[in-house]
Amino acid sequence: MTQRNWSVPETEVVQRIHDRLDGDGTDALATIVDVEGNAYRRPGAKMLLDEDGAGVGSITAGCLEDELVTVGAEVRETGRPQLVTYDLMEDDEADVWGLGVGCNGVIEVLVEPLTDTYRSAVEAFADGRDVGIATVLDGGDSAFEQGDRAYYHPAADELRTPEGAPAADWPAGIAGPAGELAADGTAGTISVEVDGTELTVFVDGLSAPSELVVFGTGHDVGPVTEFAAKNDFRVTVVGFRGAVDLESRFPAADRIVTTAPAAVGEELSLDQDTYAVVMTHNFVDDQLTVEALLDAGIPYVGLMGPRERFEQLRDGFDEGFDDDALASLYTPVGLDLGGGSPYQIAHSIVGEVLAVSNGRDPRHLREREGPIHERVDVESDAPVQ
Amino acid sequence: MTQRNWSVPETEVVQRIHDRLDGDGTDALATIVDVEGNAYRRPGAKMLLDEDGAGVGSITAGCLEDELVTVGAEVRETGRPQLVTYDLMEDDEADVWGLGVGCNGVIEVLVEPLTDTYRSAVEAFADGRDVGIATVLDGGDSAFEQGDRAYYHPAADELRTPEGAPAADWPAGIAGPAGELAADGTAGTISVEVDGTELTVFVDGLSAPSELVVFGTGHDVGPVTEFAAKNDFRVTVVGFRGAVDLESRFPAADRIVTTAPAAVGEELSLDQDTYAVVMTHNFVDDQLTVEALLDAGIPYVGLMGPRERFEQLRDGFDEGFDDDALASLYTPVGLDLGGGSPYQIAHSIVGEVLAVSNGRDPRHLREREGPIHERVDVESDAPVQ
Repeated sequence: MTQRNWSVPETEVVQRIHDRLDGDGTDALATIVDVEGNAYRRPGAKMLLDEDGAGVGSITAGCLEDELVTVGAEVRETGRPQLVTYDLMEDDEADVWGLGVGCNGVIEVLVEPLTDTYRSAVEAFADGRDVGIATVLDGGDSAFEQGDRAYYHPAADELRTPEGAPAADWPAGIAGPAGELAADGTAGTISVEVDGTELTVFVDGLSAPSELVVFGTGHDVGPVTEFAAKNDFRVTVVGFRGAVDLESRFPAADRIVTTAPAAVGEELSLDQDTYAVVMTHNFVDDQLTVEALLDAGIPYVGLMGPRERFEQLRDGFDEGFDDDALASLYTPVGLDLGGGSPYQIAHSIVGEVLAVSNGRDPRHLREREGPIHERVDVESDAPVQ
Repeated sequence: MTQRNWSVPETEVVQRIHDRLDGDGTDALATIVDVEGNAYRRPGAKMLLDEDGAGVGSITAGCLEDELVTVGAEVRETGRPQLVTYDLMEDDEADVWGLGVGCNGVIEVLVEPLTDTYRSAVEAFADGRDVGIATVLDGGDSAFEQGDRAYYHPAADELRTPEGAPAADWPAGIAGPAGELAADGTAGTISVEVDGTELTVFVDGLSAPSELVVFGTGHDVGPVTEFAAKNDFRVTVVGFRGAVDLESRFPAADRIVTTAPAAVGEELSLDQDTYAVVMTHNFVDDQLTVEALLDAGIPYVGLMGPRERFEQLRDGFDEGFDDDALASLYTPVGLDLGGGSPYQIAHSIVGEVLAVSNGRDPRHLREREGPIHERVDVESDAPVQ
């Protein structure tokens, strides 16, 4: 049993789940469904407990993982889910631990056999679609059993079975709050009344990774792709004019596109979940690319180089952009962290993309008011069916 | 010939130089000695041009590296240094390129045979000592030749030969300005008059990497060590109570220390170049560690957990700390970038350490006034000897 693989990017955890679904092993999946107090991870954090006894992904900072490997072994053997509550406040030093991090608070974890009902989740993730994974925690006296699963599909705004049919037997009151959670990419518990009994459903809003498109093929691109991939971005490197050997030069990239600057807008599907960093080090290429990106209205366009360089680029634009359009333009790209090595520059760039994608003002956390994590509590008591 | 290794952390470039000095190869070293205009890298940026034709380290964003490999081959063959000026403003699109990044401006590069005169530099770096590498660019009519070398040693405030003896034949007017550059960790050119002729010396202030000490052995420590190492910190992981297998669990760490919380202040040499992140997830361990670190007066103590947790820790301190002492305490640790995965948390922590170590306010660079890099121009015209 090894600890080494616990801390991996979330994309790798989901990828590993995907791989294991395609294999013939028997695995268990642990998901935090509730947290009280300050914990390292939030509801929705996942750990794959695979049959060779290793875990991938993390639930706490190392306090419960060994314990969960044991529970996972039971779940694999019985084929039955378990909902386990770890009350780490019961420690003798309760007052002290209650303010700990990681090994503290009350953490509720669902450990379930990994079955094909989870395939919709990982496929949506791979396809770049957000999804809400609805899992019954407590069926009460209803016909629902712990572990029963449906999916909230935002595009259709409805619950579907794991096979994709409308989830006709699921209470209608779940879709609304599930949609809120899925839209936020957060997770929470919903209670609805069904047939005079209470049904408790955990909804895990699984956000597909945002895409970071890096324009450029200089060697300074490599560190940006590495850091972005570790931070769970789906990374695309765009090269112009038949740049070669990009797959081997940028192994951290999920995708390589070679195209012409004029075709950027058409060739890439640029949407509200696309972040772009422009670092071709070529004036005309940067110009055509930045204009296309601003035109597409994506939320973030980072441009390497001083502000005056952008002003010169802009003089050659075919169209003007108003202040609103330019609000998404970050030049010079990156956070002001100092440091001039390629990795330090990349750290500052990826830090900025993270902050913008999360809607954060990148100050020191000690200057932030309020909690680091936003709590999400959704309750639905709509009488249903 | 491969591009793959160009973008590596600076520590790796220096390490590779060290390795090559210990080998029996013939290599060349390229160092930026001057830049006009906006360039990707600053004076002092280095690239090792080793005999198999590959380059390690980067000078620009890929514009000159191929050219430098060719110059490196000449230098290795002749055994003579070359001072090469690349005027990329001479491009036809001069006005446009002048505002480019990387492939623009005027870049002056010294390409020299890598000889044992460089050993003092890499040994100081490995030992954690700052040093100023003084290299003659132009001896004028003096007895000095291009490539002649001495070292400014801050502790002694004097110039020494590569072998460590006082550099008695070097003009006295160099030590002062060289000291300024070395103290800043920046690089610049000094001109002094010697025997009626002008001697031009490049001083490369080579800062030894700062140390980041991470207290904790949870799996959340791994991503912090990885990102810190890529950002050129010398990383120490401190484990308490006989934590085992730490070398294999944290391969990115330069050093593993197992000690007791009460011995932190004695066991580690904590100085003004030591940054610390405390994430043991154990209340008492955090308490003893934070008190020792604040007591040592190091410039940065990052503590995981909410602010209130620190207030509780503080209640048990043996001594009080005033506001000045607490200015170095960052809790909750990290920048406000959002994101809750272990790597995202690590990115926010290392970003904060970078900003503090560079004296920066971690805003978006687009909000920063003035240039990203600070220019250093030191001129000395002191008549000498």
